[in-house]
Amino acid sequence: MKERILVTGFEPFGGDDINPSGDVLAMLDGMDIGGYQVVTALLPVEWGTVKDRIEALIREVQPRVILSLGLAAGRPEISVEKVAINYTSESKDNAGVIPEKRTIIEGASDGYFTTLPAEEIVEALRAEGIPAKLSLSAGAYLCNYAFFCAAHLTKQGGGRTKVGFIHIPATPELAAKRKTSVPSMDLGRIKRAVEIALRTVVKSFQNVGDEEGF
Amino acid sequence: MKERILVTGFEPFGGDDINPSGDVLAMLDGMDIGGYQVVTALLPVEWGTVKDRIEALIREVQPRVILSLGLAAGRPEISVEKVAINYTSESKDNAGVIPEKRTIIEGASDGYFTTLPAEEIVEALRAEGIPAKLSLSAGAYLCNYAFFCAAHLTKQGGGRTKVGFIHIPATPELAAKRKTSVPSMDLGRIKRAVEIALRTVVKSFQNVGDEEGF
Amino acid sequence: MKERILVTGFEPFGGDDINPSGDVLAMLDGMDIGGYQVVTALLPVEWGTVKDRIEALIREVQPRVILSLGLAAGRPEISVEKVAINYTSESKDNAGVIPEKRTIIEGASDGYFTTLPAEEIVEALRAEGIPAKLSLSAGAYLCNYAFFCAAHLTKQGGGRTKVGFIHIPATPELAAKRKTSVPSMDLGRIKRAVEIALRTVVKSFQNVGDEEGF
Amino acid sequence: MKERILVTGFEPFGGDDINPSGDVLAMLDGMDIGGYQVVTALLPVEWGTVKDRIEALIREVQPRVILSLGLAAGRPEISVEKVAINYTSESKDNAGVIPEKRTIIEGASDGYFTTLPAEEIVEALRAEGIPAKLSLSAGAYLCNYAFFCAAHLTKQGGGRTKVGFIHIPATPELAAKRKTSVPSMDLGRIKRAVEIALRTVVKSFQNVGDEEGF
Repeated sequence: MKERILVTGFEPFGGDDINPSGDVLAMLDGMDIGGYQVVTALLPVEWGTVKDRIEALIREVQPRVILSLGLAAGRPEISVEKVAINYTSESKDNAGVIPEKRTIIEGASDGYFTTLPAEEIVEALRAEGIPAKLSLSAGAYLCNYAFFCAAHLTKQGGGRTKVGFIHIPATPELAAKRKTSVPSMDLGRIKRAVEIALRTVVKSFQNVGDEEGF
Repeated sequence: MKERILVTGFEPFGGDDINPSGDVLAMLDGMDIGGYQVVTALLPVEWGTVKDRIEALIREVQPRVILSLGLAAGRPEISVEKVAINYTSESKDNAGVIPEKRTIIEGASDGYFTTLPAEEIVEALRAEGIPAKLSLSAGAYLCNYAFFCAAHLTKQGGGRTKVGFIHIPATPELAAKRKTSVPSMDLGRIKRAVEIALRTVVKSFQNVGDEEGF
Repeated sequence: MKERILVTGFEPFGGDDINPSGDVLAMLDGMDIGGYQVVTALLPVEWGTVKDRIEALIREVQPRVILSLGLAAGRPEISVEKVAINYTSESKDNAGVIPEKRTIIEGASDGYFTTLPAEEIVEALRAEGIPAKLSLSAGAYLCNYAFFCAAHLTKQGGGRTKVGFIHIPATPELAAKRKTSVPSMDLGRIKRAVEIALRTVVKSFQNVGDEEGF
Repeated sequence: MKERILVTGFEPFGGDDINPSGDVLAMLDGMDIGGYQVVTALLPVEWGTVKDRIEALIREVQPRVILSLGLAAGRPEISVEKVAINYTSESKDNAGVIPEKRTIIEGASDGYFTTLPAEEIVEALRAEGIPAKLSLSAGAYLCNYAFFCAAHLTKQGGGRTKVGFIHIPATPELAAKRKTSVPSMDLGRIKRAVEIALRTVVKSFQNVGDEEGF
């Protein structure tokens, strides 16, 4: 059986009725990336549910890679996140809940770097005409929360599962509904960006394999 | 013979080797818009040449509409310009020339409004999922210069030729080459935006016609 | 009797309880600028009132210069406006009123340039360590409205009265109350900026006088 | 003898000839903050020197608090940094050197949270009319580098020394020299911001003391 790559996206939030990070999943599901099979999952925008959901997904899918996607309306390019932090803002989720504590997981590290080759992904995207940059903050809302939980849980699980997060811009359809000026990227290009990112990840496994003499 | 719509774009400038306002012309040339034929022309980024070039185009093409396009790298959406002003910045063109005077045409009005239905174009674009806004400044570089010349010359010519200017965002391919963060829009969507704008213009003629009992 | 300079500011609007463009007036009122006396007036943020108020002020004060000030929260520097346009947005004023027409004064020009030496003011401010730039749009709200009315009325009156508009940033006190990130400038520095602007204007009169052999 | 607070700033860099983070030190040096004495030090903008310099300062000053300051030209408000990361960008320092490795200290944690009450400092500043926000990224240049080194070294030293970093905006004098639009804050207000931050820190010690029954 093929090894699997888990790609997650989020439900709409904050008054929008669409979220391209969720919409792109259907375009990726089942795809083969260098011998790995893409499996997708939609995450709720709820502090109380996301951690358990990710834990269950890790158990069920046993992914070699978890790449989570989230919407960063306002950012003009694909941002590949470098670091997840053990911190939440006092912001309401879709259920109207504000997390009681600022710390996500007591006793965990303050920050975890992505274990995906973030800089190489940025380079690969730009080489293909997709605006991209390395981002040093995934914020303190549910995107960072999911990223931190995945990073912590997989580290606890031995670290074989590689973890990363990509923030995507709004789509033009979403931006056209907003009253303020919001940069955008077509969903097709976003899909292609995720695919290039995953190919870069899989290629990095093979390079390591070569070096290690597998 | 069909009446004609003149769409102009610009050559690359400022260190870029592409300019989507010029690249989109080939996708529009020869198109029929509600019975009008699109004719296109590429303008040089040169203070000394643009006015004569527009004057010659008006004479040769005798367009019912002039819609000029220009690149506004940094703006995230289609911006439909409201006003052209009789003013230039002290900036070098592609020939390295800075215009001697700040005034474009001595004795002309300080400003001319577009004679296209700018607000309706913005609405039509947004309704079709294309981020767009009304812009109150076309700057003081060659975009405003071309817009002002076209507005002045057609007004002198009796005003039957309607004139407008649309600033377009960078394309993803262009943004991916820049070192700083630049919002972008796909060339295909830009082309569609220009088409919707022109359809809105032609429709406004017909509405006026209806009202006037043609 | 000394000739007079009229400086206007605005009442608070849009949910703020302070407006530095009004607050600065008390610091300027009565000041002597190169032999001219500064007179100040606070304008209401109301479409229906501003034009009559400016007309009355011109009659009563008979100013040699009108410099209107307005708040542009979000702009980081002093912006010296180049042009007023004959156009209003569909935005509510403090009385909850949206203007019926987009045109401010039927039959007036589409745009009027400031008759103050805007570029020289920008240079003088920067030379004194005050961030400043020439702005090509005063927007389409009450700032542009007041600027356009003053420009039109004084032109109708023969043009001896010179007219300009300066947008000022939020103050730190105002910015600290906002939820979003807003750049700011100290009220003392704003006051100094207006003073430098007025000195530059008065000096330009004297230069013209010298040249003309007065 | 009084316990000490170490405040550091940086030399000018990146083409500027002033750096307000260094200029403010003279205004703070020797000040008493709730019984603590402020000691200041200017850091070089050099990858190869900063870590040793901080190590030496900790040894010599034995500070109860290290608050480092750095310039973030472009940010409009005081930003109190939440987290230092074990990462450097490939950027030249004042000596023209790019660090060989992306990792600052091998074997250290990926991220360290500030041990100052960052959220309380932000609140205290805003209450005093100083625009401020919590920042989730100190970047990957020498500011983050100094912050990370101080956080790591003091943690190794037992954690009694509390560590934080504040990014300050450009001053108006600096912004007025730039060609692009840069928000600013007066040096006097920046000085007051640092003082309020330090008072908040010292007060937090006393609160802890009270609770612990000292």
